[in-house]
Amino acid sequence: MKSYKIGIDLGGTNIAVGIVTEEGEIVAKKSVKTGSQRPFEEIVKDMASCTLSLLEENDISLENVLHIGIGAPGSIDTANGVIVYANNFKYGDHVPMASILKQYIDKPVYIGNDANVAALGEVISGAAKGLKNAIMITLGTGVGGGIVIDGKIYEGQHSAGAELGHIMLVKDGEQCTCGRKGCWEAYASATALIRQTAKAMKENPDSIMNQLTTLDNVSGRTAFEAARKGDKAGQEVVDRYIEYIAEGLIDMINIFRPEILIIGGGICNEGDYLLKPMRSYINKNVYAGSRFPEQKIAVAKLGNDAGIIGAAFLR
Amino acid sequence: MKSYKIGIDLGGTNIAVGIVTEEGEIVAKKSVKTGSQRPFEEIVKDMASCTLSLLEENDISLENVLHIGIGAPGSIDTANGVIVYANNFKYGDHVPMASILKQYIDKPVYIGNDANVAALGEVISGAAKGLKNAIMITLGTGVGGGIVIDGKIYEGQHSAGAELGHIMLVKDGEQCTCGRKGCWEAYASATALIRQTAKAMKENPDSIMNQLTTLDNVSGRTAFEAARKGDKAGQEVVDRYIEYIAEGLIDMINIFRPEILIIGGGICNEGDYLLKPMRSYINKNVYAGSRFPEQKIAVAKLGNDAGIIGAAFLR
Repeated sequence: MKSYKIGIDLGGTNIAVGIVTEEGEIVAKKSVKTGSQRPFEEIVKDMASCTLSLLEENDISLENVLHIGIGAPGSIDTANGVIVYANNFKYGDHVPMASILKQYIDKPVYIGNDANVAALGEVISGAAKGLKNAIMITLGTGVGGGIVIDGKIYEGQHSAGAELGHIMLVKDGEQCTCGRKGCWEAYASATALIRQTAKAMKENPDSIMNQLTTLDNVSGRTAFEAARKGDKAGQEVVDRYIEYIAEGLIDMINIFRPEILIIGGGICNEGDYLLKPMRSYINKNVYAGSRFPEQKIAVAKLGNDAGIIGAAFLR
Repeated sequence: MKSYKIGIDLGGTNIAVGIVTEEGEIVAKKSVKTGSQRPFEEIVKDMASCTLSLLEENDISLENVLHIGIGAPGSIDTANGVIVYANNFKYGDHVPMASILKQYIDKPVYIGNDANVAALGEVISGAAKGLKNAIMITLGTGVGGGIVIDGKIYEGQHSAGAELGHIMLVKDGEQCTCGRKGCWEAYASATALIRQTAKAMKENPDSIMNQLTTLDNVSGRTAFEAARKGDKAGQEVVDRYIEYIAEGLIDMINIFRPEILIIGGGICNEGDYLLKPMRSYINKNVYAGSRFPEQKIAVAKLGNDAGIIGAAFLR
């Protein structure tokens, strides 16, 4: 009898459910809208029915399912399967999601933080496949982080660690959403890049950035696009932003020296235009620089599937 | 037959050797001068003869010794027992210390970085006794760090991680000895405190600090002592220095949420005068502040014995 695991990626927009083999491959997947402002009972009910219909569509019996894993945003009490707090959801604090889902589908249910789970997914089937120690950084609305040590997620006491975006970059610097001033996230997130771009556009009204878009429509691509077209102000934004990313990555290397450092998020689409100067800055500034082999840095491979696969491999 | 382990703390000044029980207690210890500018052959020879005479003095046969562990400064290739690089020693790079010591005493020899080893010592017998996950920060000439996860030292690839003093505090800030600008160590070490104190003394010639000492004789205690006597300039130095320490400790908590965070170094003698405002600053700025139980922070208990005990427990 072939066994499967269910991985559920609970995002702010979609609930993505996947049937995953014991080798870490997705057999089939399906998604429904999250409706993150709804009561949690409705969200969990949809998670269950999406899972059951996906199994039915693929002629897989519940008997063949080992367990269900959920990757969810926010602070998770993984020991008890409770979402302690998630600021983009309206369902309040201390949601006992695992036990509610178990009422619909009687299988063991595990929950983990989405950034940790994505890191595990990349270790199981992605950029870190075959390795045991990996750090993954996702540059998105915020800066998310996941730590995998000895093949397992490391999350600290109360599952409250691995908040890798919330390390200091500039003491008393930019206000971070976490309340502290000067966090890495406040400089290296896509949100921060957009803010940095808009500021440069105001200061340089003749820049190519201002020809490409308006202040209301700045994206994480604006400065990169302008820089590629030879825009000096755009290039300055890009250069500084790459330094911001690199400094935090250097911290990760000095702390963890992982087998691999994985970066994810839309910004990675900039490819070598981002990665080459970033690697060069890192090699120049990392501790004991050339005395050790160069740190392996790779771009995440699985995209959103990392969340499904990592969730399926939670235990 | 009772078994013992030998722990050797190789410091810049002294080589301290201890006979340690399997329960992590030091039965006897002895030290000799390091002579850090000597060739490594002489240093290792002294390590061996100090060990052998200590065993003899305590009527313990070599048969009862399980293995020898060494905690040494610098970058260590722990897999091969080689000191890759140690900037305070003159003995050059790639010293195969384990195999040389084994020529004198035919027992398994393990080597680890001294900061990592001290953290392990505190877990075995000190402030973190009974716990499995601990971060230890030592505020001395530099800022040293050790990571213990699941009861074992975590040191990363090539044993090159756990350089916890070398995380960013102020981008483009003070020059750090590691080559990077703005590392935590460049603000929170005793060396940095002395520099900060001297600067304040020059700017405030009427301060109590200037009555206590001269610019040539500033110590890590000067500003604290003046502050206790009501000196405004001294208090400012102390307040800012405590913030510097606290910001890096917050990074450690946000990353690791360890069961316990241990701080060591002479500055801890300031007691609550240091610890109370430090804890208060941390609780206010740590990620998800009051949503989780307060981070346990303790002062290191074992002093130099941590290096001996931790070394004895290397494997």
